[in-house]
Order: sequence, then C-alpha cells, then structure tokens
Amino acid sequence: MTSIHDLARETGVSTATVSRALRGLPRVSPDTRERVLDAAVRLGYTPSPHAVGLASGGRTRTIAIVVLWVTRWYFSTVVHGAESLLRERGYDVLLYNIGGDAEARRRVLLTQLLTKRADAVMVVGFTPTPEEVLWLGRHDVPAVTLGARVDEWPSVRIDDENVARVAVEHLVALGHRRIAYVGQLSDDGLDLATPRDRLHGYRESLRAAGVDPEESLEFDGGFTLDGGREAGRRLLQLRERPTAVFCASDEMAYGVLRSCLEAGVDVPREMSVIGVDGHDMAGFFDLTTVEQPVEQQGRAAARHLLQRLDPDDGEVGLVEHVEVPTRLVVRGTTGPACA
Amino acid sequence: MTSIHDLARETGVSTATVSRALRGLPRVSPDTRERVLDAAVRLGYTPSPHAVGLASGGRTRTIAIVVLWVTRWYFSTVVHGAESLLRERGYDVLLYNIGGDAEARRRVLLTQLLTKRADAVMVVGFTPTPEEVLWLGRHDVPAVTLGARVDEWPSVRIDDENVARVAVEHLVALGHRRIAYVGQLSDDGLDLATPRDRLHGYRESLRAAGVDPEESLEFDGGFTLDGGREAGRRLLQLRERPTAVFCASDEMAYGVLRSCLEAGVDVPREMSVIGVDGHDMAGFFDLTTVEQPVEQQGRAAARHLLQRLDPDDGEVGLVEHVEVPTRLVVRGTTGPACA
Repeated sequence: MTSIHDLARETGVSTATVSRALRGLPRVSPDTRERVLDAAVRLGYTPSPHAVGLASGGRTRTIAIVVLWVTRWYFSTVVHGAESLLRERGYDVLLYNIGGDAEARRRVLLTQLLTKRADAVMVVGFTPTPEEVLWLGRHDVPAVTLGARVDEWPSVRIDDENVARVAVEHLVALGHRRIAYVGQLSDDGLDLATPRDRLHGYRESLRAAGVDPEESLEFDGGFTLDGGREAGRRLLQLRERPTAVFCASDEMAYGVLRSCLEAGVDVPREMSVIGVDGHDMAGFFDLTTVEQPVEQQGRAAARHLLQRLDPDDGEVGLVEHVEVPTRLVVRGTTGPACA
Repeated sequence: MTSIHDLARETGVSTATVSRALRGLPRVSPDTRERVLDAAVRLGYTPSPHAVGLASGGRTRTIAIVVLWVTRWYFSTVVHGAESLLRERGYDVLLYNIGGDAEARRRVLLTQLLTKRADAVMVVGFTPTPEEVLWLGRHDVPAVTLGARVDEWPSVRIDDENVARVAVEHLVALGHRRIAYVGQLSDDGLDLATPRDRLHGYRESLRAAGVDPEESLEFDGGFTLDGGREAGRRLLQLRERPTAVFCASDEMAYGVLRSCLEAGVDVPREMSVIGVDGHDMAGFFDLTTVEQPVEQQGRAAARHLLQRLDPDDGEVGLVEHVEVPTRLVVRGTTGPACA
C-alpha cells in the first residue's frame, strides 16, 4: 500500500509538505501540489480514514454557519465572505439553512451535530436562546453571531436602530412628516433582532422629529420582494396617504417601487422610497438606501473565530461586539415632500 | 461522568432513542428530543469525540456541495433545495464556494478534503476534469453533477441547447430575424457547459430558421446584471440594430432591459428580450423567459446521492442522466418584430 513516505520519495519533498498538499492546506506551491497529487493518483495512494482528525488533535478544521434563508441576498453574501476567508485558512464550512423551521433549528443547535462536527459556529440573523448558548458553551464550541447579539458571545452587526434613524432623518430633512414603515411585524418565534430594532428606530426617530408614530402606517413586508409589493399596494390605498416610506430592506423597497409604478404613483414626486442594505440591484433601481458592508461582516466574523481557534494566526483579535459602519447613499427614489 | 445510559434512565427511553435524539436524527418525537436534551444539559453530558463516526461505520453523514458562486441565484437555490432534503435525512452539507479560482477548485476536488470529510459530492455548474473524476472514483466517493455532465457520473440538468431553441423559436415566430445573443463567451478554463450549450443552441436554431449566425451579434454578459447592462449598451449601438435579444440568464436580461430604458428604446415594440431561468424577479420585470425548476434539481441530485449511500432508503433511484423539463413563460418583454 502506498504511503505518504512513498509520495515524499517520489516527488522529492518532505512528508510534511506531502501531507499539507494532500490536505489542501496553504503554503504549498501550486507546482509542488500538482506533483504530489499526480503521484498520489498515479501510485494509488489512499489516505487512512482518521489521519486528519488525529493530526490536528481531534479538531475538525470545520466551521458551522447557521443561516435562516441561504437564497436571500444578506445570507448568501455573508456565507460568501466567511467561506472565502475560511477556505484560504484551510477550514471547511458546514452550512445549515434552517429557514423558519423551529425543529430544524433545535436539531442543528441543540444536538451533537455541531459539537462533534465543527470547531466553532457562526449564527447568522437570529438571536440564540439561553439554552443554545448554554449547550454550546458546555461543549466548548466558540460561537459568534451576525446581525444579532447575546451577551455571552461576540457579535458582528450594524446598529439597526441607527440605520432606521439615518433613513428617517433623511426623509424628514426632505420635508416628509407622514412616513410609512415596511418591515416585519411578527417573526414566528425566531427572535429576529433586525426587524425589531429597525421598527423601534423608525418610531423613535419620528418622535424625535415631533411626529407621533401611527400603527396604521406600519406594514409587514416579510423581507421579500412580493411582501414589499403587497405592503406597497396597501399603503397606497390609505385614505390619508403617506408621502414617503422607509423599507427595512432593499428587496421590500423594490416591491414598493413596483406597486407605485402599477398604481401610477410617481417616485419620488408623489412618494419617496428608501431601503436598507446596498443590495446588488439597488443602483439598478436607482434606490436611495442605507448601505451595510455584508461580505465584510462575514469575513470579520470568520476572522474572529479563526483568532479564537488559532491564537497564533497573526490576526488581531476583534473586540467582543463589533458594529460596522453604514452609509447613506442618496439616489433617485427620494425627493422633497409635496406641499 | 454522565453516560448515555444515565440519560436513558433519567428520561425513560431506550439508549438508541437517546442516541438518535442527541445526533439530531429523524424519527424522534419533538417531546422526547426535548426531554433528552434537557437531561443532557442538566446532567452535564459530554459526548465522546468519535462516537458518531464509529456508529455509522466510518461514514461522515456529510455531503460536499461544490458551487461556483453561492451569491448567484441558481447556485443558492440549488443549495437550498439540496440542503433541505439532506438535512431531513440526517445529512450535513459542506459548502465549497470556489468562484473562478482554479487553485481553490484543485484544493477542494483533488485533495483529501472531500475524500475524508464527505461521503459524497455534488458538483454544481461546471464540468469535472478527467483527473477529478479519477481521483474521486479511486477514493470511492459517489458524485453527481448539476448543470453539467460527464459520462462517468450521474447528472441532473436541463437541456441547455433545447432551452436556446425554445427561446429563439419564440422570437422567430414573432417575426424576428435579427436576434442577438448575450451569454458568456469565455470561461477562464472553468469548462462551463451551460453557456457553451446555450450559444450552440442559439446558432443552430438561427440556422434552422434560415438565418446565418453573426459573431457581431454575440455578446459577453458574464452572467451578471452589470454584464448584461453593458452588453445591452453595446448591442443598442450597432449600426444595424437587432430587433430581439436572447439572454442566457434572466439576470443578464434585466441588465439589457435597463440599457433599453436608458437608451429610450421601447420594449417590446423596438426590442424584444427573453431570458432563461425563472429567476424570482422575472415576474417583477414582466420578463418572458424559459423557466427551469432549480430547487427541484437540487433536491433531485441530493436524492440521487442518498439512494447511492442508503440503498434501503425507500427512494426510487434516478436514472443516470436526468434532464428536467423547462417551460416557456411568455410575458410582456417579447412582441412582434417591427416591419
């Protein structure tokens, strides 16, 4: 049976280099890697099943990323950012896409799945329960949250209340007083911090501007395009129509823009629309929005976990709760309120 | 130290049920799972590190999914479809998002990464090389391709040439003769079957309609929105402008629609536009397109691998090369050619 020593002899490099090349770790030249792999295929080398685990002291060199909906822009972009950095460092990503399924969430976070298969876990877009925090802590699995925070774990996120404030203040500065909100008003027990904080920021900013928030101006758009379109239809039917709408995501804002188009309501002359995200089609729709750096948040969270797992990695550790800055990008969908 | 027997005694169920509950496998009632997990947290149960691997005969119960760009609709939707079925069956997903990076591709597919960490592999959107097929075969890793095919592995895909034919024939039936193509003309060595087959289908369908394909009407849109917009700008500047354009993806078609809007070109009166995909915004843009069922392709490929891994799973095995049907959806962006 071909051994790693045979491959080292055949290719004229050390067994350590052969091992690195076979495991796909960095710091092996492409040329050397190619020669080692060619030799491995040619000589019929078969790895022993548990060598990697043993070599790394029982570590899996795997990070679990738990997302709600991988098909949505924020989540796929976080995964892209995190995975690219982790792969560079020789880590693999286990992806759990739990949707709104409470049982799936329980199966992933409260069983041995994570504690056996991953060295660390990244929780994206929802708030872990005390039981989940306890369980993972007990099994010594480092964790980080994105887009949410708990006291026990580090987090990477934007200041969602401030995002709402920036958006509402932009509209107020343009003379708007009657400003609707399209977000998410219930979350099926998932405990989503983002919609709650943006709604709260919206109400507080209205109050700061001397406007009483009205529940009749708050709509559930479910963070989807179609939900935004339906919310837009309803808010355009109000007897006393708002002159502006703050949407808690760009995708919902696209839906509102569509409903305005369908109703013959001119944007921004009759209706100003602002979103949140900096979604990759925001420029395309000429949408005014509050941009957040999503890929970078994924990378930052991954970097934090790497620092926890490999303290000698040369990376500077992040402070516990990182709030990344956002940026108002004014485009064509917001304008002065009509007299 | 708390053992699995202690948990069984504490909760009044069998050790097998305790084990299933802890491993997150199906066929445990939510109530039982909850009691077992509560007991595990309360009694401080810590699993032995290699129990899962040993219990399943060295199998990892993990499937690797290798995609090009997880942020793009087709790929994230495939992952969503595959992951949801695999999770139901107690399998985890390792996600590799290799982008256009040849070295990353090599690291993932031609090292021990996959052969040690996954029971099977799903390759999405690109054609495996003979070396990759040989390597995985030698290590006895079942594989399936989506959106591409090699003779040695089963595949799930649409008939890309036929998709192009359906689109071009729709335009020809509307009287169009001068029909442009926006797709991808080079692929940086990734060997992407889809753009190549759609281009070929486009040319063949034109010939079948008695029209000679012209290279000056073929544009590279890189399968992105911005690429489509740039291709649209260029094709609208042609001295002898086409009256219709077949875009090899809906996202490129949105870009072409935008360039028409910017140039004041009326769609469909002056320019008909058709896409491929059934992207979730196609209805929103009122885009005529050839729809493919993407989530279902992800599930079908996952089902195939499960059948290979657990032949008693009760699933009917798929035939080797599955071509799923597509469907022309006529909306507002295509119309009769101007006289």
